[in-house]
Amino acid sequence: MNIALDVMGGDHAPQEVIAGAVVAAREYGVAVSLVGKPDVIARELSKHDVRGLKLPIIPASEVIEMEDKPATAVRTKKNSSMVVACQLVKAGKADAFVTAGNTGGALAAGILHIGRMKGIQRPALIVPFPTQTGFCLLLDVGANVDVKPEHLQQFGVMGSIYSKRIMGVRSPTVRILSNGEEQGKGSQLVLEATALLEKTPGITFLGNIEGRDIVNDLADVVVTDGFTGNVLIKTAEGVGKLIRTILVEEITATPISSLGGLLAKSALRRLARRVDDSEYGGAVLLGLSNLLVVAHGRSNAHAIRHAIRVAKQAIDFKIVDEIQAGVQEIADSAPVRQSQAI
Amino acid sequence: MNIALDVMGGDHAPQEVIAGAVVAAREYGVAVSLVGKPDVIARELSKHDVRGLKLPIIPASEVIEMEDKPATAVRTKKNSSMVVACQLVKAGKADAFVTAGNTGGALAAGILHIGRMKGIQRPALIVPFPTQTGFCLLLDVGANVDVKPEHLQQFGVMGSIYSKRIMGVRSPTVRILSNGEEQGKGSQLVLEATALLEKTPGITFLGNIEGRDIVNDLADVVVTDGFTGNVLIKTAEGVGKLIRTILVEEITATPISSLGGLLAKSALRRLARRVDDSEYGGAVLLGLSNLLVVAHGRSNAHAIRHAIRVAKQAIDFKIVDEIQAGVQEIADSAPVRQSQAI
Repeated sequence: MNIALDVMGGDHAPQEVIAGAVVAAREYGVAVSLVGKPDVIARELSKHDVRGLKLPIIPASEVIEMEDKPATAVRTKKNSSMVVACQLVKAGKADAFVTAGNTGGALAAGILHIGRMKGIQRPALIVPFPTQTGFCLLLDVGANVDVKPEHLQQFGVMGSIYSKRIMGVRSPTVRILSNGEEQGKGSQLVLEATALLEKTPGITFLGNIEGRDIVNDLADVVVTDGFTGNVLIKTAEGVGKLIRTILVEEITATPISSLGGLLAKSALRRLARRVDDSEYGGAVLLGLSNLLVVAHGRSNAHAIRHAIRVAKQAIDFKIVDEIQAGVQEIADSAPVRQSQAI
Repeated sequence: MNIALDVMGGDHAPQEVIAGAVVAAREYGVAVSLVGKPDVIARELSKHDVRGLKLPIIPASEVIEMEDKPATAVRTKKNSSMVVACQLVKAGKADAFVTAGNTGGALAAGILHIGRMKGIQRPALIVPFPTQTGFCLLLDVGANVDVKPEHLQQFGVMGSIYSKRIMGVRSPTVRILSNGEEQGKGSQLVLEATALLEKTPGITFLGNIEGRDIVNDLADVVVTDGFTGNVLIKTAEGVGKLIRTILVEEITATPISSLGGLLAKSALRRLARRVDDSEYGGAVLLGLSNLLVVAHGRSNAHAIRHAIRVAKQAIDFKIVDEIQAGVQEIADSAPVRQSQAI
């Protein structure tokens, strides 16, 4: 197994990215192809004990920066670490691509240079979202801003398979994000997608879910368009940050509450860890003919290591083949149902 | 000034609703028409000292329940407190309608029985959303799930006027919710609405805002469709609840952190108050020919009192006339701009 890693992408590249690669290569016994500027990679590798580890250097002279326009950058920076890494995957020399760089750039490079899975109309970004007792998978969180009902149906299938294989949920429940929990509530898109999801083979679809109930473990998978999903995860991030800021402000406002905060410090740290996303490997783009993992831009070595773990698991469990089979099953079932309806 | 109050609506009706009405009538010197079952109202009023207060009882024998289908209920329950209260407003016997009942029912009753303002295509629900230093106004949060660019343009105008008059912001900034802060990011709806908002007279439009930045005081008013806005506020509610639950779990996990939590109790209470919405009077439906305030279903007397205060302020500042003038200004400016473009 070989995982192509964009060494140049992310706020803490290349140091933390390479540090994460070294740990992952040792921990999981995988080869990690380090794609980027060779001198930079060599210098960083010299800081680590890499004996016995498979960490080949793949030269790429350019970098798609955070402020670059994705589509343009992917077309003009042909020797960027992202494009080179995707071509490595496409050529069968790597099994997945992991990056903490420009998300839009990663999606564009993946779609253009790895390519869509047969039958998939729109690849979707999936992330784990924290709940009371664990996590719920949410997709799409930003790959497609305008979608059709059929796309949401495919998201349901991909999310369900991912939940089974990667999260180990035996019979994952799927819901669609809406503005009310009652059936019949929702935009035209939600209503039409619901009709499709209800008759989709192989998934357990339970109808609508509201934004406030995602944290209440009412679904293993929640599907939505990339616009709403993106607003949702960013709002959650903003609210979390706001509460943290106000909490610190209020606790440090008086000596007594400051002492209280000090005594409760380990509890506050556990709270932060439970809502932190770095252990969960970031977002995965499902629907390409190979896997693409987009770690958070602010990933440290720990987050990079977990992003590589997610890629490894997805390869181990043949996620791409499973999704391919699931999508084929919808395609096969559609005409049968139509003729039954006559 | 007379404010029609739905005495039967809300989780804590009629006790808390009437208690809030009594305080508001005394505090703000307004008449509050209590609409609902006369015997229930009389019984509750007997618990308070109401000498000198203007609290007329307006009989209504039916109640639109939380689980009722809004459109049907408004049509069939013609003697419900909501319908009777709206008719009171329509007849000019009250200046605004306040309810903590079924939101969908309130919107349907308002649109059907109070009626749209001339020139307004879609009334929108506006709420204050907590930020680092105060509040940002968000609309629409649920009145319209599928909207057109022109509707978002009108939301921008209504929000801006509301911010000026009710929140006292001299020159409110308006942004549109999107999946990225850069110009050009967004759904087709966002891109088309942006083009309209950019050339709208009388507002300061600053482009896109992401979900995570709403809390960072980057805009006084954020416009979005009612589907996304509803998902946003409910997600924020869910995340807030999740953090509170985990915080309590972690703080009570050990004796030392429990002691810490005890010492920091007043700080935690101040945190809760700063992100609590009961002081801000709930959501206001803008775009009707009179004002409608929808308080949270779980409103206590305190929240009802503040909802009445919001209605009073809106009447004092002639919000309806101001919005009417702003909408007229867009209508007048449109043909001019078109001919200029030739």
